[in-house]
Amino acid sequence: MIQGTDEKEPMKMNSTEIAQRCADSMFARDKASRELGITVEIGGAGSATARMAVSDCMINGLGVCHGGYIFTLADSAFAFACNGYDRVTFAASATIEFVLAARLGDSLVAEARERFRGKRVGIYDVAVHNQDGQLVALFRGRSKTTEAPVISGYRD
Amino acid sequence: MIQGTDEKEPMKMNSTEIAQRCADSMFARDKASRELGITVEIGGAGSATARMAVSDCMINGLGVCHGGYIFTLADSAFAFACNGYDRVTFAASATIEFVLAARLGDSLVAEARERFRGKRVGIYDVAVHNQDGQLVALFRGRSKTTEAPVISGYRD
Amino acid sequence: MIQGTDEKEPMKMNSTEIAQRCADSMFARDKASRELGITVEIGGAGSATARMAVSDCMINGLGVCHGGYIFTLADSAFAFACNGYDRVTFAASATIEFVLAARLGDSLVAEARERFRGKRVGIYDVAVHNQDGQLVALFRGRSKTTEAPVISGYRD
Amino acid sequence: MIQGTDEKEPMKMNSTEIAQRCADSMFARDKASRELGITVEIGGAGSATARMAVSDCMINGLGVCHGGYIFTLADSAFAFACNGYDRVTFAASATIEFVLAARLGDSLVAEARERFRGKRVGIYDVAVHNQDGQLVALFRGRSKTTEAPVISGYRD
Repeated sequence: MIQGTDEKEPMKMNSTEIAQRCADSMFARDKASRELGITVEIGGAGSATARMAVSDCMINGLGVCHGGYIFTLADSAFAFACNGYDRVTFAASATIEFVLAARLGDSLVAEARERFRGKRVGIYDVAVHNQDGQLVALFRGRSKTTEAPVISGYRD
Repeated sequence: MIQGTDEKEPMKMNSTEIAQRCADSMFARDKASRELGITVEIGGAGSATARMAVSDCMINGLGVCHGGYIFTLADSAFAFACNGYDRVTFAASATIEFVLAARLGDSLVAEARERFRGKRVGIYDVAVHNQDGQLVALFRGRSKTTEAPVISGYRD
Repeated sequence: MIQGTDEKEPMKMNSTEIAQRCADSMFARDKASRELGITVEIGGAGSATARMAVSDCMINGLGVCHGGYIFTLADSAFAFACNGYDRVTFAASATIEFVLAARLGDSLVAEARERFRGKRVGIYDVAVHNQDGQLVALFRGRSKTTEAPVISGYRD
Repeated sequence: MIQGTDEKEPMKMNSTEIAQRCADSMFARDKASRELGITVEIGGAGSATARMAVSDCMINGLGVCHGGYIFTLADSAFAFACNGYDRVTFAASATIEFVLAARLGDSLVAEARERFRGKRVGIYDVAVHNQDGQLVALFRGRSKTTEAPVISGYRD
């Protein structure tokens, strides 16, 4: 910004821009996702894609990727999808169906799509596939929306 | 056993000893749980308690423990509970209800109890509490049993 | 209130009596449960037992009790358990694990127990057994509490 | 069949025809669905649409349609979707998210779609809407396939 811009004036952003700003704001603070090497793309409000490679530290006692990390990837996609409306939104509950084991070196992609959004409750489906396009897991999350903004200071 | 060390003779172990041996065998290979600092106690076949401290790398974009790590802790307790019969057992599906946010420094404990065990299917409930005894999450896992032994070589 | 037996004076009831009154009030209006022959016992606030015999009209295309009726029985037990605090409470979500088929003539009993109750959210587990004590299904319901009273006029 | 047809020769049917035959065979025996006035359309193997009007006998103690009947409708759609491959298939587990109450006289439609089908396990999503196109519930079912045929005698 160079000159003549009134920083106090709220920016006019469309819904996709708001969703992207929310994601940027969250991701900057999201150590959990970043330390796992998770990357996130926003496809518009209510939609997000998260990617993660299965690393050595994710292998469980049965020699495959711990289901907790598959859930974590899906949960991250869910979080970025449901927090794209600039209202802090938490997971209330989630279910996951494990279909195929993920293995060391797999590149997983989790696509979150909104199925329902009411005033306080949202429902999001996340499908996790591996690099061969095989379905690894199906996740469904129920979200609870609060009044707090995601983008700090945006509405000041 | 009276004399000599006949390594080929199968040891006589009761169900709790078998469960403990399965847990030892799994834990030794379970990088995922160990790298997170998770510890596991076996309370007999079908029962396990897992503990984890919420560290800095588990904090998400909303400033609390990523739900994925709460799930991971519960899923570890579930895995150790359902693999205590010396049959490799996987998670088929799971549900989690998030009740209270976990925060940096919290000491979480996940107690897994068997609710049903058939030939191939098992159902396990896991309750996660924090250090103040407050309920953080309720998890229910459905397991699928295979024919493979957990304790390598035990039945040779 | 000064003298005599003023019927407008609120009765003093303990929590079990309130739960019983809520159940009586709900059951009188609950055509769904009554037409299925479901009976309900209250074990105190947060606790209920519902019973149902599997009748001919509940048999599905595979020759066993339609899972919908097993769910309905469990859901009724859940509803009576979570509405015992004189606040109208709805089911937000539920999960059910089917363990054993129920058959024509079976006498099913569903026992609902509270696992968590917060200001607005509750979690209840329901186990359904048959007349031989065999587990038929495990149900978990998440409830949402409103401000409306269950016992009409009780607080007038 | 009049003459010249060899009844022992297996009919050649495509997957949609097989799915329709399975549905016809099941529906003829499915007293539960028929007594509730449920109708079923098959959209091909793995896909089914079930419809039901909310009648007086489905109203619960809170004055709305008992969640058990919404589940039952979704479960019927699920059953017809997953039994369309001529292998008897049962529900192993299911989850339902209740979004909007259904009321007396509502015409509900449940659309089941296959999300995954393996050798023994299938996952199906069912969305239930009312006559105004509003989402009432989202259901997800996990199925377990047996070796038995649905169409009796078809493979004799």
